[in-house]
Amino acid sequence: MTLKVEIRPGTYFDSIVLMQLQRKLAALPGVDDAGVVMATPANKELLEGFELLSPEGVQAGPDDLLIVVKSADENAAIEALGQVNQLLQEKRTAISQAFRPHSIEMAIKQLPEAAWVLISTPGRYATDVANKALDQGKNVFLYSDNVSQNDEVHLKQKAREKGLLVMGPDCGTAIINGIGLGFANRVRVGDIGLVAASGTGLQAVTTHIHNLGGGVSQAIGTGGRDLKAEVGAITAIQGLELLSQDEDTKVIVLVSKPPAAEIATKLLAAARATGKPIVIDFIGYPPPARQLGNLYFAISLEETAELAVQLADQENPLIKRNDTPGGYLRGLFSGGTLAYEVMLGLQNVLTPLYSNVPISKHQTLTNPLKSKAHTVVDLGEDLFTVGRLHPMMDNDLRIRRLKQEVEDPESKIILLDIVLGEGAHPNPVSELAPEIEAAKKQRPDLDFLAIVIGTDEDPQGTSDQIELLENVGVQVFRSTNKAVAYINGQYATKIESTTTQIAIEEFKRPLAAINVGLETFYESVVGQDAKAVHVDWKPPAGGNEKLMDILAKMKN
Amino acid sequence: MTLKVEIRPGTYFDSIVLMQLQRKLAALPGVDDAGVVMATPANKELLEGFELLSPEGVQAGPDDLLIVVKSADENAAIEALGQVNQLLQEKRTAISQAFRPHSIEMAIKQLPEAAWVLISTPGRYATDVANKALDQGKNVFLYSDNVSQNDEVHLKQKAREKGLLVMGPDCGTAIINGIGLGFANRVRVGDIGLVAASGTGLQAVTTHIHNLGGGVSQAIGTGGRDLKAEVGAITAIQGLELLSQDEDTKVIVLVSKPPAAEIATKLLAAARATGKPIVIDFIGYPPPARQLGNLYFAISLEETAELAVQLADQENPLIKRNDTPGGYLRGLFSGGTLAYEVMLGLQNVLTPLYSNVPISKHQTLTNPLKSKAHTVVDLGEDLFTVGRLHPMMDNDLRIRRLKQEVEDPESKIILLDIVLGEGAHPNPVSELAPEIEAAKKQRPDLDFLAIVIGTDEDPQGTSDQIELLENVGVQVFRSTNKAVAYINGQYATKIESTTTQIAIEEFKRPLAAINVGLETFYESVVGQDAKAVHVDWKPPAGGNEKLMDILAKMKN
Repeated sequence: MTLKVEIRPGTYFDSIVLMQLQRKLAALPGVDDAGVVMATPANKELLEGFELLSPEGVQAGPDDLLIVVKSADENAAIEALGQVNQLLQEKRTAISQAFRPHSIEMAIKQLPEAAWVLISTPGRYATDVANKALDQGKNVFLYSDNVSQNDEVHLKQKAREKGLLVMGPDCGTAIINGIGLGFANRVRVGDIGLVAASGTGLQAVTTHIHNLGGGVSQAIGTGGRDLKAEVGAITAIQGLELLSQDEDTKVIVLVSKPPAAEIATKLLAAARATGKPIVIDFIGYPPPARQLGNLYFAISLEETAELAVQLADQENPLIKRNDTPGGYLRGLFSGGTLAYEVMLGLQNVLTPLYSNVPISKHQTLTNPLKSKAHTVVDLGEDLFTVGRLHPMMDNDLRIRRLKQEVEDPESKIILLDIVLGEGAHPNPVSELAPEIEAAKKQRPDLDFLAIVIGTDEDPQGTSDQIELLENVGVQVFRSTNKAVAYINGQYATKIESTTTQIAIEEFKRPLAAINVGLETFYESVVGQDAKAVHVDWKPPAGGNEKLMDILAKMKN
Repeated sequence: MTLKVEIRPGTYFDSIVLMQLQRKLAALPGVDDAGVVMATPANKELLEGFELLSPEGVQAGPDDLLIVVKSADENAAIEALGQVNQLLQEKRTAISQAFRPHSIEMAIKQLPEAAWVLISTPGRYATDVANKALDQGKNVFLYSDNVSQNDEVHLKQKAREKGLLVMGPDCGTAIINGIGLGFANRVRVGDIGLVAASGTGLQAVTTHIHNLGGGVSQAIGTGGRDLKAEVGAITAIQGLELLSQDEDTKVIVLVSKPPAAEIATKLLAAARATGKPIVIDFIGYPPPARQLGNLYFAISLEETAELAVQLADQENPLIKRNDTPGGYLRGLFSGGTLAYEVMLGLQNVLTPLYSNVPISKHQTLTNPLKSKAHTVVDLGEDLFTVGRLHPMMDNDLRIRRLKQEVEDPESKIILLDIVLGEGAHPNPVSELAPEIEAAKKQRPDLDFLAIVIGTDEDPQGTSDQIELLENVGVQVFRSTNKAVAYINGQYATKIESTTTQIAIEEFKRPLAAINVGLETFYESVVGQDAKAVHVDWKPPAGGNEKLMDILAKMKN
């Protein structure tokens, strides 16, 4: 077997051309295999694995086009390489048959109603193209990957100021006004709107929705990094606001890998603010509950679709939020697991939240003896029980802590767990109730909540204990879930919308788009009976890196 | 206000005595407040917060008993301190009224049928007591906290060899043969058996079960550290085996905070091996699915109870497992989120599992171009798409990788995703099917699975694509969930039981116990009409640290 190699330094061809060239070379008589790649380290390793890397090929750099032909017959290989220019030409001719604008500006003149620019150039050119599109007042669907996070932030901030959307980078899919962009399944038009930081996640959910008989109003991709702290979920939050305004969207779906903690808080606040039923799948993140107000949590893409279709089939009252009580929760627990479960349910709404039994390190309450912000403290933790009875037996420590919280003007809700049963204090509420009564006199603004864990057979008499609590104005819950749902409702954070609102009427005009990059995406849009123009885009200096550097220097 | 202080170096009193002394002092005429604590740093900080720490008190060390009286009247304070001995005496007299054995050995003579020793001494003495109990062939309920992890491992290994259980350390609760140990709610006897590494978690679930009309066969606590890698879930696995054998247990519940990864795998294998329906709540861990075979995943304590009661109300066929296919899964994906969701569902059963889009760092596939063990690779990841079309458009890379997997004798199941729709390859299966057909000729032992994401309106024709796949023997799933459930069933790991089985008949004899430590736990057991003996336990040398050191040195 011989390998024959040609290296073309710093030349740009789009990926479809490269794929077609490779296939055509491999199909030539006497040729066993062929490789046509940009010679990045990963691509060279791949060639090596396919037995297509010769010592010459190793020398090629990441900006070089590397063409390899493998054959048992050296002449056949040489002949094949000799046909490269002609094979490339075939494709070119096909493209040039139609008149194609060479710039976004020209394309806009051809199709002024285009509100979208679809970009699938190689990543290093994509930011420039996207900036141009935004400058022209167009929304951007940015399929390209390998765009820096910094560029992403700048593009999205710019878009937000202008009331425009940037979906991506690395946004594989979207459905806007019934037209699929990038990779998109053909689904029924309907009343479920989606926002997703996950390409195949969005495809899977829209597909399941269609297969279950439901339909999609809008499916907005954000790109996988949108929910990182640095990017701040700009697109996701714009998307939620848009779907919130949209009268054709009855149910919202939000899908992504687990967001950064502070982003989760922001997103959930934005989700609540929509008032519409919204199904959330933070893939691989423990759901805080099945339902919290208008938020429904799913654990898989398939379940997300099922829930959304169910909700779309029923009447869902717009869930109004209370005003936030403007003070902090102080949870004084005797049961560690109860404390933990409460935190799981509250951590994305009550921030910052601190604890001596934190779920994440950043929640650590450095001084367990003193609360700050929202605090959940486990008074049964080892630190407190050296030479001291467990707080289920001895109320002293909890009563003293309760007094401390009452003295703190920042406290607003005091949450206790009362765990009854064998071994526990014979009548815990008899000791706690007078303290709560006194506290309420001193601080009538304080709310007292209690989670009571007990059965009708417990020696303390569960119903008696509950009655004693209710007599002093304590709101009683029989499970952590129910307490969590209540507190979440109390603390629904207001979201400050600093966004220039996206004009919904304009957004919902029939989709028209300008496509820069992969031609198949243009064909797909036109095939769906939407208007589009394909730009015959070339990188500056034809992708020649040296020339590009010189051009860039001349500009400065 | 004056503070009067007495320090008693190195003296042991149990926590109940200390609590009672504090209360009695605080109730004396002229006394405003009192504190009686072991002078650990945390306890001194607490006293400081309660304005009960004087400069003298600061000097006291962690083994010293610190007695503080606060009063406006110095004489009253002095007088109060003068009564300490008498107040302590009151309690002592009460105890000595009954005949009490002074050692476990003596207690066993009194109650030879006792199969349990309940231990709630201070942590530093607890290991010795537990060792004695095991030497005498008794199961141990170890309430004490502040026991080292190393001691825990030794105790549990010893117990396992003897076919005994060690519940704890820091095990707050259990229900054995209808009798509550430690803190335990009184619940109906029934057919739900529980294993929990979480005290109030176990209490909450048993309580919810009772309140929903269900009942409990056994509730086995393990202590919070049992599911750490170092401890290896010894007690939890013994507990599952026990409940598996127990004919009175129809449904099993397993509750804990998220276990270490390798422990999760072990536990899930043990859970499957029971064949009984088993509800799992790894609190705060994303559930891999709602149901996988006989495993049901819940997201809260309340839901755990609801599911268990539902399952107990219905017939549940014993779910038999297939033999493991003895080779590895190789998932070759075009969709990143689909790959991720598949891993979420498989990661606790298919270990080790590697990926170029890992969920946890330890799953990182260092060379994404080569699979090892179970591998799920996202071929649409940035690394693979520089100058190359996405694998949804171009099958070349996936076909080459598929051939590579076929060459690897360790591969057993090859899983592909086929994402149809706009923008994607117009007929991907037409290229993949011949390759699969050829692969099956070469390796008839290989299984091919495909997840097909598509609608009936997609341009490729979803049903046509599925038919083409099925024609070459590919098993087709329409969602990741369904593929995950199937693969999980294939790879049910066998668990090697190295344990000396706990003799179930013996375990189920009416509970009788020897209590060492808190007297209230003895009273509680006797109050439930079970037999018990309370040991009048004292630490060696009366808790005097210096004497204890000398005694220890004399032994060596």
